[in-house]
Amino acid sequence: MTRKIIIDTDPGQDDAVAILLALASPELEVLGITCVAGNVPLPLTAKNARVVCELAGRPDIKVFAGCDRPLLRPLVTAEYVHGKTGLDGIALPEPGMALQPGHAVDFLIETLRREPAGTVTLCPLGPLTNIATALQKAPDIAPRIAEIVLMGGAYFEVGNTTPAAEFNIHVDPQAAEIVFHSGVPLVVLPLDATHQVLTNRARIEAFRGLGTPVGHAVASWTDFFERFDMEKYGSEGAPLHDPCVIAYLLQPDLFEGRHINVEIETVSELTLGMTVADWWRVTDREPNAYFVGRANAEGFYALLTERLARL
Amino acid sequence: MTRKIIIDTDPGQDDAVAILLALASPELEVLGITCVAGNVPLPLTAKNARVVCELAGRPDIKVFAGCDRPLLRPLVTAEYVHGKTGLDGIALPEPGMALQPGHAVDFLIETLRREPAGTVTLCPLGPLTNIATALQKAPDIAPRIAEIVLMGGAYFEVGNTTPAAEFNIHVDPQAAEIVFHSGVPLVVLPLDATHQVLTNRARIEAFRGLGTPVGHAVASWTDFFERFDMEKYGSEGAPLHDPCVIAYLLQPDLFEGRHINVEIETVSELTLGMTVADWWRVTDREPNAYFVGRANAEGFYALLTERLARL
Amino acid sequence: MTRKIIIDTDPGQDDAVAILLALASPELEVLGITCVAGNVPLPLTAKNARVVCELAGRPDIKVFAGCDRPLLRPLVTAEYVHGKTGLDGIALPEPGMALQPGHAVDFLIETLRREPAGTVTLCPLGPLTNIATALQKAPDIAPRIAEIVLMGGAYFEVGNTTPAAEFNIHVDPQAAEIVFHSGVPLVVLPLDATHQVLTNRARIEAFRGLGTPVGHAVASWTDFFERFDMEKYGSEGAPLHDPCVIAYLLQPDLFEGRHINVEIETVSELTLGMTVADWWRVTDREPNAYFVGRANAEGFYALLTERLARL
Amino acid sequence: MTRKIIIDTDPGQDDAVAILLALASPELEVLGITCVAGNVPLPLTAKNARVVCELAGRPDIKVFAGCDRPLLRPLVTAEYVHGKTGLDGIALPEPGMALQPGHAVDFLIETLRREPAGTVTLCPLGPLTNIATALQKAPDIAPRIAEIVLMGGAYFEVGNTTPAAEFNIHVDPQAAEIVFHSGVPLVVLPLDATHQVLTNRARIEAFRGLGTPVGHAVASWTDFFERFDMEKYGSEGAPLHDPCVIAYLLQPDLFEGRHINVEIETVSELTLGMTVADWWRVTDREPNAYFVGRANAEGFYALLTERLARL
Repeated sequence: MTRKIIIDTDPGQDDAVAILLALASPELEVLGITCVAGNVPLPLTAKNARVVCELAGRPDIKVFAGCDRPLLRPLVTAEYVHGKTGLDGIALPEPGMALQPGHAVDFLIETLRREPAGTVTLCPLGPLTNIATALQKAPDIAPRIAEIVLMGGAYFEVGNTTPAAEFNIHVDPQAAEIVFHSGVPLVVLPLDATHQVLTNRARIEAFRGLGTPVGHAVASWTDFFERFDMEKYGSEGAPLHDPCVIAYLLQPDLFEGRHINVEIETVSELTLGMTVADWWRVTDREPNAYFVGRANAEGFYALLTERLARL
Repeated sequence: MTRKIIIDTDPGQDDAVAILLALASPELEVLGITCVAGNVPLPLTAKNARVVCELAGRPDIKVFAGCDRPLLRPLVTAEYVHGKTGLDGIALPEPGMALQPGHAVDFLIETLRREPAGTVTLCPLGPLTNIATALQKAPDIAPRIAEIVLMGGAYFEVGNTTPAAEFNIHVDPQAAEIVFHSGVPLVVLPLDATHQVLTNRARIEAFRGLGTPVGHAVASWTDFFERFDMEKYGSEGAPLHDPCVIAYLLQPDLFEGRHINVEIETVSELTLGMTVADWWRVTDREPNAYFVGRANAEGFYALLTERLARL
Repeated sequence: MTRKIIIDTDPGQDDAVAILLALASPELEVLGITCVAGNVPLPLTAKNARVVCELAGRPDIKVFAGCDRPLLRPLVTAEYVHGKTGLDGIALPEPGMALQPGHAVDFLIETLRREPAGTVTLCPLGPLTNIATALQKAPDIAPRIAEIVLMGGAYFEVGNTTPAAEFNIHVDPQAAEIVFHSGVPLVVLPLDATHQVLTNRARIEAFRGLGTPVGHAVASWTDFFERFDMEKYGSEGAPLHDPCVIAYLLQPDLFEGRHINVEIETVSELTLGMTVADWWRVTDREPNAYFVGRANAEGFYALLTERLARL
Repeated sequence: MTRKIIIDTDPGQDDAVAILLALASPELEVLGITCVAGNVPLPLTAKNARVVCELAGRPDIKVFAGCDRPLLRPLVTAEYVHGKTGLDGIALPEPGMALQPGHAVDFLIETLRREPAGTVTLCPLGPLTNIATALQKAPDIAPRIAEIVLMGGAYFEVGNTTPAAEFNIHVDPQAAEIVFHSGVPLVVLPLDATHQVLTNRARIEAFRGLGTPVGHAVASWTDFFERFDMEKYGSEGAPLHDPCVIAYLLQPDLFEGRHINVEIETVSELTLGMTVADWWRVTDREPNAYFVGRANAEGFYALLTERLARL
């Protein structure tokens, strides 16, 4: 039986790879893609999602535009990582498919109300603004969500945006607080996990070696994407953050984590957006998330390459 | 020419009087009433708004239910002021009119997009959750709003809920921050103003003396309502907070204020929800609100009684 | 029987008048004056205190220098109110008397340990840095202090430094928190009280009419001092903040307040240093201060003038 | 030439080992030991420091009692780690040597003023209350301090007290802020470093194998001490936190770190006391500390055992 998912995203090269991985996987039925401002502004993320669908040969996927800014804070984007378009690295044609009418938040609410309770999983790959706004406007959907499997946060690996915070959560910490306090089952793929699935020459060449437009695009994106991490951290490659979410759905045994309490710092400017993860259970706070600490890089890249080959 | 308004409200006796005042005033066209959780939970505010419309002989008014909780914080209500129903003081029949289908937030967005820009005024009488959610979901409506005239906050009069904060803002300080930073022209009727329009025996008897069901209800509500303030503050009567918003629309010269900067405290638990009003201009922050400091009680009660007589 | 006091101060014209009032009053025995950075930097406050003692003909008074900066925050001074010297308005000779050796904090500790418990009252007229540092270094002195009667804070009158905070508390909110949580009996003379004892022409001329150097100096200082408030607030005169502390010791019935809880805001930059006074007892927090809300201006100026005449 | 140091400490077994290491090292001249409340209350730390001096055969060392509580927060202790006495694990005789008269803070100030500038290094092993109070009371000592080499904080290893904070900094974050903003050259030995020098069977037996009372005591303490970490973290042994400070002075090449900016979280309860270390230089904040990230465990235990053998 397939698993129904909605991908909430701000592509971004690694978001793009995550979308491709999902579309390549028969175990998953993508009910729609909801776009949010994050890595680049909303008009670009809403365009990039469609570019990626078309690259995958899936112009039938429903793509919605959502919130164009965080709940309370001004939008901060990350063109220094993703390039000006969000998908720098290869030139792709303008999308021919149209955005769906209606707001991403309404699509989330209507879909969750329409589908049987407990059958739809949300996959947020960017700031949690759309998800939080939907939960806020229609709290009745919370118990209908099967699970939220998200990329965001950091604990031992700390921040990539500030010394304390990861980008997705830092951009909209209030939205993250709403999601982490929603009572919905959460799986969190933080930097701790994603920094264990680094690109390298062989892995990028394996994408290119697929000999397909998809393989070529993914290789070009990851080539572009890894410059940033290699220069900044001196690491050997770049973490493919967002595809971890889809990989977790497909093969959860690639990942290992703990059911713990995770709180979002929303008060202090210094530590804003930190995911305060009680990994060692030093507090009495109730667990509210499965926080992933380990990822199997070999298995992850094997899965990713095998699936991309299908497109 | 009439002025189009949407009343966003959590009735509450004083909200009820405000609604009646609006419906009694030919200068105003009430496009709809959007309900929010606040003084009492959403099911009650959504019911009470309809009770009041029917009391006014206006079952044609569109009433919508909106957000049932603040953006980030758990809902806190004020039954200790308003009684268990929110309209304690007189027994009124169950409403016959139905709630409109759809969410209050969508009604706000659709109406503001449909009506000519700059023609619709919002009148929030409760926590600002609906307004903030609409602004968040559809930022394009902000420049289309003529004005937001709201009851909330306190400065010299300080808090009625904590030593620093007034109820409406304290319940949802994050929503208030969104509204106060929205760039929409704001008029704020804080406790400083509303504590100058106290009920007293003569004023309540004037309502009752109208000899109408409306007059009887308003007298009964204010009788009930003033108990709280008289016991707590030893004042001679109760402030009719929310009708000040409508009275300001009808007769702005009853009020006097200053164009100043007003920021919302969202960080510290101790002062949470305070409206930090730069009355003396000791900061460089830009003015973002007309903050009312004085109200003409005689004129206010004369207007209110005259109008209620029309219903 | 005389009451033993230590004046902790950052003169400042109104501090100077407070010192003169104390030295003119046989009911009070000034064990020493401890200086702190505040209105002007420490070298000036330590000098000004001695200038004032000599003006009063009391070069025997022990004057100590204390802390030259707040506990955690950079020092902010108020030359825009007090002038460059802190005592602008009249030229007075350099002091001949020397500072005492030793640190003000040690003098506070040693004196409180030496004098019988419960016999020494502290009179802080500036930021509470010295007092807090003494309490921190030697917590055993807390139960030995008879009372702390301080000028600082604001509630209904709100801030003179930010929209939420008064100068003395805003300069060193952490020190204030230590003092307000010390368990020592506190009397607080906030702006609410001091803004009721405004100078005016007749009052200033009464000082000058004393025909003494002290009368001349006080008239000159208050002339200088009131410019600021008249320009900023459009008030008729200037509040003589600090002398209220001494007047309270001499004639407490000039003042009226409430035993309530007062907390210091130390978390949020927006409201930093606010004295959150639970005037209406809306919280469950225990009373920790007698917070003065009313002052008798006529009585205050009569007392002050009569006393200054003795010098 | 020997290096003059003052050890500021709250023993605690690992503090005790640090003191022994210092007293066993001819490169260091211990000018005094200042005690502070931390692992256990002040009376116990002031006693334990003397017990350790006598164990080392050094009753001539000057030991002072200092602050018995943090600057702003109530004292929190750690008997769950150190046992009721702070030195649980072996019974040692009551100390015969007396505490020095005078306050630890005054000893710090006087010593730093007396010794040539730049010749005295401070070695804080506990909460930074004494050091901060000295810097606050006598800011002139800051440029006279050669260096502050302290145990405290955590970054990648995160907290041992809360999910975000290490014990020493969490107990008195305001004191830490004063120290980290003092401009004094800082070396920080955080959990990141100290968790790399874990005890194990062989290392503990090496202590015991010294066949001396000191070796016996150190083995007994570490036996006791490691229970906690082994149970809580499932690690193979316990980190000997505080001796890292002394080892760094003796053999800095055992450690490796980065000159970076480190800020102390003092605002948010959730992340209070976190040492926000800009390891990857993602901010523009100026470096203010050498933050150690690696420690050579073999070298550390070799040094420690060799030195303890001398006592």
